[in-house]
Amino acid sequence: MTPYDIIMKKRDGGVLSKDEIEYMVFGYTKGLIPDYQMSAFLMAVFIKGMTDEETKNITVAMTESGDKVDLSSIDGIKVDKHSTGGVGDTTTLLIGPIVAAVGLKFAKMSGRGLGHTGGTIDKLESIPGYRTSLSESEFIEQVKRIGLSVISSTGDIAPADKKMYALRDVTATVDSIPLIAGSIMSKKLASGADVILLDVKAGGGAFMKTLPEAFKLAEALVDIGRLAGKKTRAVITDMDQPLNTHIGNALEVKEVFEILSGKRKDSALREISVALSAHLIVMAGLTESFEDALAMAEDALESGKAKEKMRELLEAQAGSSEALDNLSLLPQAPIVKSLKAESDGYLKSIDVLELGIAARDLGAGRLTKEDTIDPSVGLILYKRVGDKINKGDLIADVHASCEDLGNKVLDRLRNSLTISDCEVKRKPLILGVV
Amino acid sequence: MTPYDIIMKKRDGGVLSKDEIEYMVFGYTKGLIPDYQMSAFLMAVFIKGMTDEETKNITVAMTESGDKVDLSSIDGIKVDKHSTGGVGDTTTLLIGPIVAAVGLKFAKMSGRGLGHTGGTIDKLESIPGYRTSLSESEFIEQVKRIGLSVISSTGDIAPADKKMYALRDVTATVDSIPLIAGSIMSKKLASGADVILLDVKAGGGAFMKTLPEAFKLAEALVDIGRLAGKKTRAVITDMDQPLNTHIGNALEVKEVFEILSGKRKDSALREISVALSAHLIVMAGLTESFEDALAMAEDALESGKAKEKMRELLEAQAGSSEALDNLSLLPQAPIVKSLKAESDGYLKSIDVLELGIAARDLGAGRLTKEDTIDPSVGLILYKRVGDKINKGDLIADVHASCEDLGNKVLDRLRNSLTISDCEVKRKPLILGVV
Repeated sequence: MTPYDIIMKKRDGGVLSKDEIEYMVFGYTKGLIPDYQMSAFLMAVFIKGMTDEETKNITVAMTESGDKVDLSSIDGIKVDKHSTGGVGDTTTLLIGPIVAAVGLKFAKMSGRGLGHTGGTIDKLESIPGYRTSLSESEFIEQVKRIGLSVISSTGDIAPADKKMYALRDVTATVDSIPLIAGSIMSKKLASGADVILLDVKAGGGAFMKTLPEAFKLAEALVDIGRLAGKKTRAVITDMDQPLNTHIGNALEVKEVFEILSGKRKDSALREISVALSAHLIVMAGLTESFEDALAMAEDALESGKAKEKMRELLEAQAGSSEALDNLSLLPQAPIVKSLKAESDGYLKSIDVLELGIAARDLGAGRLTKEDTIDPSVGLILYKRVGDKINKGDLIADVHASCEDLGNKVLDRLRNSLTISDCEVKRKPLILGVV
Repeated sequence: MTPYDIIMKKRDGGVLSKDEIEYMVFGYTKGLIPDYQMSAFLMAVFIKGMTDEETKNITVAMTESGDKVDLSSIDGIKVDKHSTGGVGDTTTLLIGPIVAAVGLKFAKMSGRGLGHTGGTIDKLESIPGYRTSLSESEFIEQVKRIGLSVISSTGDIAPADKKMYALRDVTATVDSIPLIAGSIMSKKLASGADVILLDVKAGGGAFMKTLPEAFKLAEALVDIGRLAGKKTRAVITDMDQPLNTHIGNALEVKEVFEILSGKRKDSALREISVALSAHLIVMAGLTESFEDALAMAEDALESGKAKEKMRELLEAQAGSSEALDNLSLLPQAPIVKSLKAESDGYLKSIDVLELGIAARDLGAGRLTKEDTIDPSVGLILYKRVGDKINKGDLIADVHASCEDLGNKVLDRLRNSLTISDCEVKRKPLILGVV
């Protein structure tokens, strides 16, 4: 077996064996196969594709390339969720407390963001004092005690994926369903959960722009999870507009805290988080009825139990639990600029990527790993697509670190919104389940 | 313009502009584009192909990446020929003297072989004293004076091709028509000739195994040459068996010298060399009639004028011209093993690659650039496909440096020949002209 033969086989559309795939993945991770052979291989995979079996095998090989989290000492059902990412998408911080409140175990390792806004870890770090680095044993002890922990990854999880992703990123081989699916699922399989729920975003602000693409990715993810023996489900949700009203690290935490405190009952973030929690509840076997599961998730929010779980989480990881009741303790931007409607109409569409760039320009996200994030800055959108707008209505706020930047981003924000005089249909939040 | 965008465009089957192709080729040659991006690009080209215009543009870019030979100070028509290579294929050493004898200018830079037997330069070096390294001005002066020179490449011809070929060789991206055509023609365009004749081999011993593949390559080569403003023609010739009877460096020179001396009138090497010379004579405009051109080439051999040109070449480049009349002055192997027919029949087929490996095992070729060649060793095949064989007939000789190796190669040689009791049809030597 040589890298050359394996590249050639895939180049000609052949189906690779488990051994051949492991040879490439392990060889590359160990530095035995050079970048230039791996990139030719990845381009051949990109163009020729992979079967379900090959996709599972490359995923498992990437998982096996590094450390795995052993959650077996924790009693109960360990659940995990993953979002393929978008702009303004903070479900983890609601789902964790909800499912922990109904008795599931939510032991989540999360990443920092490289994108328009921060990742879950960046958002949590906007809460004064929150410790995102725990040792694996501290992490496991905490989940045993309160059912919930969210920390940044420990150990060397799926190093093959890290190395391959960095190479794909510079060789135009990112947008390949088997490679995307492998990248996501290799880390999920290493996370040690019994149940994996995937939130696949579809739309202008997501990786997958169209619904058919999103379904394809969702199917690939679910196939891998099931072939690897995990309870796996994918929910396809809309990313033609942000899920949150609040975009930016502390702003997103603020929106979560408001929902946990019983406010914002009509919010999209709340609706999706309850639905995703209900899927986890059904998958974990607490009930067979999705209706019952929805009611359990709703009750966790309504009763304040989810808020209490968030409080326990903050106390366990040294985050300011006072902020949960006093949002002014969260970082606040000095400048707030408001966008008001200049005419009547309906909000027709939002260019979510433009909005993301606006948030990043403010300092809410990173362009390179070295960039630092300003937790206080971001945007608040008061309208959703389909909403009626009257001249003079407040549409959005920009939270900025200085006046000039605020004005600049306000212009970008204005250009990212399209207002029509025709009535605009609302899209459902959940587009499908796989 | 970024390498990423260009890789992506080709990945998606797009047609690249001249600028985009130059950006990749020059950037890679200068070390500004890393191997891993070039290999992803080459794999995308391999799978998605290139248009005629793109193929011409990548070829010209490779030519422009290095030095070009300026033959403009030489009066007359400068002709060049190139063979895509096979086993036992020494036409250059006959065509050069023939076309020089009729008044054309044959200023040829040639390479060393990395393969079953040596390249033209290795063959010439088996002639005692022959100098293959001349300065460019010595080379040009000699062509002005006697119409003929064959030397190893001077300067830095098509460095992009060297670097890209080395990368293709380890990333399974060699067998791509546009890339093969570009590799061949970039060097031809740099050679400074007005007229380019391509001998495209088809069959088991060639790069192109089938006739349709060979036609495709021939068409690609001719398209490039014509788009680049050169008189270009390709002749497709059979490589289902060696062209020569003699395979090995000094042995091939010996066969050439015999033909120049008026012997071996029925030889395939002679027939093809005369035909290819006639094509060059027509292309150079000495006559419009191929029949007349054939007669001119025949006359050059018959009259001894071609032999005299070879003598002038050897004298000009310090090679032993006595060897031309006294073949025993060429290197001789100490051991000769003979293969005789064990039964009656017809020679049905020859596994040319096996034969090539046999020659290389003897020491006639190189596996790596560092290997040295033994000029004396090789094989002589006394039969061609279709020949009637009687039990006891001499089929082949193995010329070896020692007894054991000779016996080992004799076995390999025996296994590479198939003899049938059914009559076998002979194939023509020339399969097509493009």
